[in-house]
Amino acid sequence: MEENKLRGDFTLPGEAGCEELTLRLAQTWGADVIRDSDGTKLSPEITEAGYRIYSTICIIREHNAFAEAHPECQQQTFLSSDPVTAAGPEVRIPLLRGYFDEQFALNDTAEALACWEVWDRTADARIPRESWQYADGEITVSGCTPWHRYTASFLCWRVWEEINMYNHTTNHWTSAHLRQLDPRHPLAWQYLQDWLERWCEDNPQTDVVRLTSLFYNFVWIFGDDARRRTRFTDWASYDFTVSPAALAAFEAETGMRLTAEDFIRKGFLQATHRVPTDAKRAYMDFIQRFVAEKAKVLVDIIHRHGKQAYVFYDDSWVGMEPCGKYFASVGFDGLIKCVFSGFECRLCAMADVPVHELRFHPYLFPVGLGGLPTFSEGGHPERDAMEYWLHVRRALARQCVDRIGLGGYLHLTEGFPAFTQTITRIADEFRRLKQLHSHGAPAVLPLRVAVVHTWGRLRSWTLSGHFHETDSHILIHLNEALAGLPVEVSFISFAEAASGALRKADVLINAGMQGDAWSGGDVWRDPQLQAEVTRFVHEGGLLIGAGEPTAVSGGGETLALSGLFGVDVDKGQYACHMPWAFEVEEAPFAVCRDALAARPGVRVTAPDTHVWAADGGVPQLTCREAGRGRAVYLSGFRWSPAASRMLLELLLCLTGRNGAAASLSSAPEVETAWFPADRTLVAMNNAEREIAADIATPAGPVSLRLQPLEMRICPLG
Amino acid sequence: MEENKLRGDFTLPGEAGCEELTLRLAQTWGADVIRDSDGTKLSPEITEAGYRIYSTICIIREHNAFAEAHPECQQQTFLSSDPVTAAGPEVRIPLLRGYFDEQFALNDTAEALACWEVWDRTADARIPRESWQYADGEITVSGCTPWHRYTASFLCWRVWEEINMYNHTTNHWTSAHLRQLDPRHPLAWQYLQDWLERWCEDNPQTDVVRLTSLFYNFVWIFGDDARRRTRFTDWASYDFTVSPAALAAFEAETGMRLTAEDFIRKGFLQATHRVPTDAKRAYMDFIQRFVAEKAKVLVDIIHRHGKQAYVFYDDSWVGMEPCGKYFASVGFDGLIKCVFSGFECRLCAMADVPVHELRFHPYLFPVGLGGLPTFSEGGHPERDAMEYWLHVRRALARQCVDRIGLGGYLHLTEGFPAFTQTITRIADEFRRLKQLHSHGAPAVLPLRVAVVHTWGRLRSWTLSGHFHETDSHILIHLNEALAGLPVEVSFISFAEAASGALRKADVLINAGMQGDAWSGGDVWRDPQLQAEVTRFVHEGGLLIGAGEPTAVSGGGETLALSGLFGVDVDKGQYACHMPWAFEVEEAPFAVCRDALAARPGVRVTAPDTHVWAADGGVPQLTCREAGRGRAVYLSGFRWSPAASRMLLELLLCLTGRNGAAASLSSAPEVETAWFPADRTLVAMNNAEREIAADIATPAGPVSLRLQPLEMRICPLG
Repeated sequence: MEENKLRGDFTLPGEAGCEELTLRLAQTWGADVIRDSDGTKLSPEITEAGYRIYSTICIIREHNAFAEAHPECQQQTFLSSDPVTAAGPEVRIPLLRGYFDEQFALNDTAEALACWEVWDRTADARIPRESWQYADGEITVSGCTPWHRYTASFLCWRVWEEINMYNHTTNHWTSAHLRQLDPRHPLAWQYLQDWLERWCEDNPQTDVVRLTSLFYNFVWIFGDDARRRTRFTDWASYDFTVSPAALAAFEAETGMRLTAEDFIRKGFLQATHRVPTDAKRAYMDFIQRFVAEKAKVLVDIIHRHGKQAYVFYDDSWVGMEPCGKYFASVGFDGLIKCVFSGFECRLCAMADVPVHELRFHPYLFPVGLGGLPTFSEGGHPERDAMEYWLHVRRALARQCVDRIGLGGYLHLTEGFPAFTQTITRIADEFRRLKQLHSHGAPAVLPLRVAVVHTWGRLRSWTLSGHFHETDSHILIHLNEALAGLPVEVSFISFAEAASGALRKADVLINAGMQGDAWSGGDVWRDPQLQAEVTRFVHEGGLLIGAGEPTAVSGGGETLALSGLFGVDVDKGQYACHMPWAFEVEEAPFAVCRDALAARPGVRVTAPDTHVWAADGGVPQLTCREAGRGRAVYLSGFRWSPAASRMLLELLLCLTGRNGAAASLSSAPEVETAWFPADRTLVAMNNAEREIAADIATPAGPVSLRLQPLEMRICPLG
Repeated sequence: MEENKLRGDFTLPGEAGCEELTLRLAQTWGADVIRDSDGTKLSPEITEAGYRIYSTICIIREHNAFAEAHPECQQQTFLSSDPVTAAGPEVRIPLLRGYFDEQFALNDTAEALACWEVWDRTADARIPRESWQYADGEITVSGCTPWHRYTASFLCWRVWEEINMYNHTTNHWTSAHLRQLDPRHPLAWQYLQDWLERWCEDNPQTDVVRLTSLFYNFVWIFGDDARRRTRFTDWASYDFTVSPAALAAFEAETGMRLTAEDFIRKGFLQATHRVPTDAKRAYMDFIQRFVAEKAKVLVDIIHRHGKQAYVFYDDSWVGMEPCGKYFASVGFDGLIKCVFSGFECRLCAMADVPVHELRFHPYLFPVGLGGLPTFSEGGHPERDAMEYWLHVRRALARQCVDRIGLGGYLHLTEGFPAFTQTITRIADEFRRLKQLHSHGAPAVLPLRVAVVHTWGRLRSWTLSGHFHETDSHILIHLNEALAGLPVEVSFISFAEAASGALRKADVLINAGMQGDAWSGGDVWRDPQLQAEVTRFVHEGGLLIGAGEPTAVSGGGETLALSGLFGVDVDKGQYACHMPWAFEVEEAPFAVCRDALAARPGVRVTAPDTHVWAADGGVPQLTCREAGRGRAVYLSGFRWSPAASRMLLELLLCLTGRNGAAASLSSAPEVETAWFPADRTLVAMNNAEREIAADIATPAGPVSLRLQPLEMRICPLG
């Protein structure tokens, strides 16, 4: 080991049959841990080479023999048939038509059938049980109203674990289709505990059991047609936790009786992006408690065997909720988050758990999550890695994690030496950042930014999956920008915003579209919430709204607080109402036009609204003073280094904060962090070209010339 | 008079002081009538020159002395103050702040004050009367909740007749501001009858009293700031008919007690473009009855004096409703409609009245309605006239009117000889079309097109004003196209559609946006309506939806009949739901891409939807077969000759109708009409260039070469 070269805190995926490569890359990248992955094994040459060993377990999977012997222990879900139009008094509904038949099998046990429902969707009426019959995969409804549309909601078994199904269909796996067990079934639960006990006994070399992940996959419903292979997918929804037993337990605990329609909701289900029903909120809390209790039992088994339990925060993570009320009670030793983006680092870092580890992308797989080649012909994994690192690095400069690592098939790296070099560089930059953090946190502006949305702290930083899966939502772009800014960020619910949380905030952000969980939907009708945000602004707060902030339904003002913003979004209700004409004024900060959206319908509704950007006569960036504060409207916000910089300048400028602690660079491409304990500046060039920057630091001005993408650590002691 | 040269049926605006010009142009244009205009007088040299004479009367105006002596006889309206945010327990609301003080004066009589209301708009609650006080133009509210927003709704007098106000502010008139009387006030009503009686006695030379128009202006609310001079304007709304007496009479007649909020509706009022409340519908009917009764009394006076009564369908026309239930009962002798467009001809032509007359644009005024110069420096009135004529001509080819004419200041034509020539040409083409119609109607395809919207027959052809005032609405473009197509067109209400009207239709069109009066809003939740349209399609009908047809609120499917269309519009509810991938197929007719809109959110929701046009992956034109019929979706429809042609081809192609009677031209720029009685083809070149066209007529194929904009009449007997 070279002197001054930092090592460790790095998890390498090993691969049996590639022992030499495994140990060489462990050396190259300074790994201290070797892990297996989904689809790979470690050999004794690896496990006995002096590294700590993570072993991956997907606890609910790989038990096909048991699942086949006890099919009633499998997981389930509600599905709705596609609607069928009645041409006469009788209609036949083929239940699974349009669904992927390898994923689902009808659960027509008596217990399940009691939960099935048939609906006249035209009349919005449930059909009485005596008017329909089930046989051979079809429901026959009698007494129909001609030309009405009918659907059936039913339970079915999920007979192919979804991550395995994805890997088969994407990466052309040909092994057996793995089934999945529901820990709520007593037989399954006893089996899983016994199995884990045995597993721990059988795997003495394992230091850390890497749970990948817990019990319930995020929702992923396949169709039977390649033109719509995925019918519905939501990374953060709870639909795959359901079963008659779960419904019975929920009723026993809460007194609330849920029906199929609480899940199906006219076929629309309940995406995390939408405002949830009270039933959904209560059910989620119930599942979180269940998952935490069961997870604790497993973690206790692992601990009893002298091993540690790390949990992977993806795949079958549903109900775990690292920012939820029950997570800490489980007793995990570590949380591992796969990351493309800065917000995912912040999400991982804030969990109440001893060790925070990032698993980088690209995963060592032929094809990436977006479907493009990575470690295969045409792939450029080193470019991908560096692109993600630029996002991650600026977040790590704000708040560090403990470890980093990779996953997948190590042998795939062999044709890609540039990738090996890039990971070496990334690992080095990570370790240098971690070392700085270990001496004390970076400076943060005295600026408390509260982001308000439906889920509040439960869904801090994330929306519902990775950036590229949610990038049509404005808030993910704002989160990504905030992840690297020198400000305090918290995520609060509307109930908290209405009842005191704004007393601890300088800036309130609400970003989303009417009716989505991020804007908040009709919660904004609450007079207390409206009044409290109005007070907050009038007493000096900065309100930032993006897209359709505070938007409600019902045909009055679209933005409940349009009176503060001085703009509104016309959904038709302004027919015949003229907007205020305006001139675009120069903003007191550099406007990143590319970050803003063309949003037809936005109109100025007050004479004292300042318009700082407009497109084709439609306002895009406005500011209105109200009392001692301000309300800023952004038509959109698309993340980029320049957009991020605009947000920082906007925050500094409109709150009157002193920029010194922000270590603002003259070049918007260069972001900085100031570590007071070491009197050290970290300057990160986000551009792919050399950039010269003058930076105002608490130790005085610094002039730097940074190489493309360079991170420079400058002690100014 | 030359032989073979048609003359007459032309109304010329005369002008005292320009007698020579008046009589010369009367000769040039073949006028048989001379009229005065708002702002002009006729002299004896004109009235005694042997022409019939129209005299313009605005019955409620030009009575300033009476209005000043009896201010309680003036017309009124409800207004809402702008909201005021309470910083403490008391808030002061300046009522008329932001309104044009020359238009409004508070009506704070005891009778009016009883109708005033104060609202906490944040809590959506009316403030009890004892909690507010009025003095000196302000309301003071006590017991406020801090940071809530308060508004007051109040009655005020409209002290400047709006058309006069428009002419002053647009055309720089400096004469006295004209006031307007409310015929509902008994004093005013008696005065107006007496005045008309006297007027008829004093004007023996007048053959036709041209009422311009009746009692109540369309709504036009001015603001006090040039940046928003018009706050609200709706050509077809009834708000300017209100008064405490009207509310009392309405309650006496209907038992329904309306409040200020029925008119104010959170400050949004009720534009014709929006779905009306039941209260608004009932109130409109009540006003229509009132207007018809009062108008009949005036018409009877006119008739008693041996004169005819023509009514102008614009300005203070509100409540008259030429397609309404009470119009025929008035006994008008003629209806005069000012026209820019084809749909306005059809509207005029369908009224149940002996004489239908069109008043062409441009009006002989320095500035046009759009604010651009016409008869002044930079104006090209001959181009304007020809542009409007191209729209009007094709509609007149389908359904003729009895007369045409002009209005305004004749002296303004003197610098514009090309305009004089153009009007000569237009008058000639009109008379030739009228002659053809007099021998028998043109051929119509056996194709019955029903347009369904909220107002049904009451608002046949028009939406709410001229084309350029409503051109953001899809339906006006479709109406304009239909106005010149050889198909039967009717306008039906949703109640009629749900209860049998579709039995008499081959095609149903629904075009508008969610929540507007044209799409229909939540009326589409009605299961009977949904089922009936579904039946109509399944049994062979063609459903054409444009924009957001059949769209409802509430978070389920946006298009209530998305199941028929096989497309829907994502308003956020499809988050996490994947659409069907599609290939664009070739349509069975020529698609006019420019007519279609980019409408983000449109998605394919059925596997059997044919996509015939798409933009950036978003469907724009689709067709789905359902039963024996089809449902076609258009993302938009922007009128042009090519768009009109696409609509005709679509209708022919998707209903399987034989195109022969359509006399389809090989050149889409050329439209035709076939007059069977004369076995005559009318071919109209809508292009500004020479066009060669082969036309299939019932008399066999014809090949023509038409000059730019030419109308050719081809007898094929």
